[in-house]
Amino acid sequence: MPDETTSKPSTQNDRQGTAGRKEPLLLTPGPLTTSPATRAALGRDWGSRDPDFIALNRRVCERLVALAGVDPAGREYVAVPIQGSGTFAIEAALGTLVGPEDKLLVLVNGAYGRRMMTILSRIGRAGTALEWDEDQPVDPAAVGECLSADRTITRVAMVHCETTSGILNPLNEIARVAARHGKPLIVDAMSSFGALPIDASALDVGAVVASSNKCLEGVPGLAFAIIRRSMLDGCKGQAPSLALDLEDQWAGMEKNGQWRFTPPVQVLAAFDSALVQHAAEGGVEGRGRRYRANATALIRGMTALGFVPYLEERLQAPIIVTFRMPADPAFDFERFYEFLKSWGFVIYPGKLTRADSFRIGCIGQVREADMRDVVTAVAAALRALGVRSGQP
Amino acid sequence: MPDETTSKPSTQNDRQGTAGRKEPLLLTPGPLTTSPATRAALGRDWGSRDPDFIALNRRVCERLVALAGVDPAGREYVAVPIQGSGTFAIEAALGTLVGPEDKLLVLVNGAYGRRMMTILSRIGRAGTALEWDEDQPVDPAAVGECLSADRTITRVAMVHCETTSGILNPLNEIARVAARHGKPLIVDAMSSFGALPIDASALDVGAVVASSNKCLEGVPGLAFAIIRRSMLDGCKGQAPSLALDLEDQWAGMEKNGQWRFTPPVQVLAAFDSALVQHAAEGGVEGRGRRYRANATALIRGMTALGFVPYLEERLQAPIIVTFRMPADPAFDFERFYEFLKSWGFVIYPGKLTRADSFRIGCIGQVREADMRDVVTAVAAALRALGVRSGQP
Repeated sequence: MPDETTSKPSTQNDRQGTAGRKEPLLLTPGPLTTSPATRAALGRDWGSRDPDFIALNRRVCERLVALAGVDPAGREYVAVPIQGSGTFAIEAALGTLVGPEDKLLVLVNGAYGRRMMTILSRIGRAGTALEWDEDQPVDPAAVGECLSADRTITRVAMVHCETTSGILNPLNEIARVAARHGKPLIVDAMSSFGALPIDASALDVGAVVASSNKCLEGVPGLAFAIIRRSMLDGCKGQAPSLALDLEDQWAGMEKNGQWRFTPPVQVLAAFDSALVQHAAEGGVEGRGRRYRANATALIRGMTALGFVPYLEERLQAPIIVTFRMPADPAFDFERFYEFLKSWGFVIYPGKLTRADSFRIGCIGQVREADMRDVVTAVAAALRALGVRSGQP
Repeated sequence: MPDETTSKPSTQNDRQGTAGRKEPLLLTPGPLTTSPATRAALGRDWGSRDPDFIALNRRVCERLVALAGVDPAGREYVAVPIQGSGTFAIEAALGTLVGPEDKLLVLVNGAYGRRMMTILSRIGRAGTALEWDEDQPVDPAAVGECLSADRTITRVAMVHCETTSGILNPLNEIARVAARHGKPLIVDAMSSFGALPIDASALDVGAVVASSNKCLEGVPGLAFAIIRRSMLDGCKGQAPSLALDLEDQWAGMEKNGQWRFTPPVQVLAAFDSALVQHAAEGGVEGRGRRYRANATALIRGMTALGFVPYLEERLQAPIIVTFRMPADPAFDFERFYEFLKSWGFVIYPGKLTRADSFRIGCIGQVREADMRDVVTAVAAALRALGVRSGQP
């Protein structure tokens, strides 16, 4: 299917899997392309109750607390890791921190906010949603009005960057509103943590939830919540789950440094390496700078081809960019996807937004030059499909 | 601490981690020592929604069904993988398959049976336990009497090999009793699946639950349940969890072959490789044969040093062996553990049984020669500690 007369960008041939197989760049919401050092750290076995592994685990948790803008030594916040995907940690956080007497206000402008409502209904906890269109950010003033009007609400949950559209919600403003009303805020920072600053302590946030395999560039299989300790201490025995009880997980680790149930040891070791690399890149600031350069290069290149981003520029997080589907009837998304894959770029194979659109990620081990290459591949794909412009 | 005058067994120096670091052999209930091929399969990135990964996932699930003694093509049983440790899959199976109107009879002779009772209480499902001492197997006749006496029981759960002590419970006999009473049986086969035969279809078992990192010798981070499809179909929407809902997980995979939430892609790829290696070793029979040889060599060698196994020989599964603590007051378990570790053997650092004991595992990428080497190391440890015999 690739146009034989078009030369392919150089990145493709540089991506060799360890099994000698070409690996495409993953430009998705995750799992992402990781670094060779991170993948190399996967390559050994660990006894999960052995002191060496316990030390590794402690080191990871301390780094996570520091990334939330808190001094780990103060123990004001603790990081509690949990097996599974980000959704496992979200369910664990809601189950552990939202008790049978609580009522959670969920701020919804995409699939991940809606998913929190689904979880609440499954785990039998009370919740109410405040909703916005998917191309509109959560409005702090409306949150304040809602908290004033409904005094039965005890906690608030929001999604920092809604991966559905790529929109950035105003965390600082919402945190201030929640704090003013004395309602602990639970932040789904899945696709922002490590690349966009979050100052949990200064913002008086209750919990920040994220995973190993987004902006921290570990491999998937592990997620975590960074929780205000005073909040966690009050939640003993209230989770409607044993596996997803973050208080019990934390109490177990406090006791002997061990996970209650077999941890994904290789995934942890890779995460430890990924966190060292994150620090070497300049931490949240350095990682965010690279991603912003990626997003800018992508949007600039795609716009030149006629594509139109779904979001206004000021609302766009540098994480994943949603583009409206081209109007040209010759544009066939399946063929477009396959063409890009044959050039070494895997984009998200389908839409999550309610709008007719597709998404290209800017995170993981990808650089500005890769984004220029993907734009070159997109241009070649349009030519191959006989599409004149990306114009929606 | 090692006795400098005793030569160390050869295995130690052969275990080199990919980072150039010596890795000890893991003689624990897991995570275990895996093969170089399995660890090599960890070394690449995968797009979780990409057709290549979907094909890998399907292949893994079909192999798992076949390992439960069922033809995958008949679709009488399906394999449903889930992120996390074995306990995540146990909680998911209980939450999905035990409804609000059900009552589960749990057969308990160790920590894993007791854990099922804890899970039931957390997830708000009714259960009743029938208990035996930890050195006694579950008694099928007593199970039959209990089912006759309490007609409110609708399902039965048991642990095949209780890793607490290493005891093998009589699966076939219990399955026949449960089937005679028309009560679906849920089997925790965590530490037996892949090494001890389980003929789910012939035994009319409801579900078999296990994980990637025991006898199948994958890395941890993934577990699964093999479930009678007719049973699963009736459980839609009843799990008190979104993340741990096996029916929803299955329905999602049926629809598009994808996981609902980010899977641990590298762990899956390693598991795919581990399953190929399992087949090449002769499947359940070949794997079981190696483990039996390991257990026999271990017990023979340890017995010659005066140690006494906790279980009668006829009750001992070839998975993990519990030894009574030596009576000699010079025996210090912490020092014993550290000595063995310095020789390249990590055993389980602590007891799980109620009896004063310690455990040495026989599973993972270890062979009879390794077990003879660990016995040599144990003998050297006794000398170094000034312990005359392992006699309890």
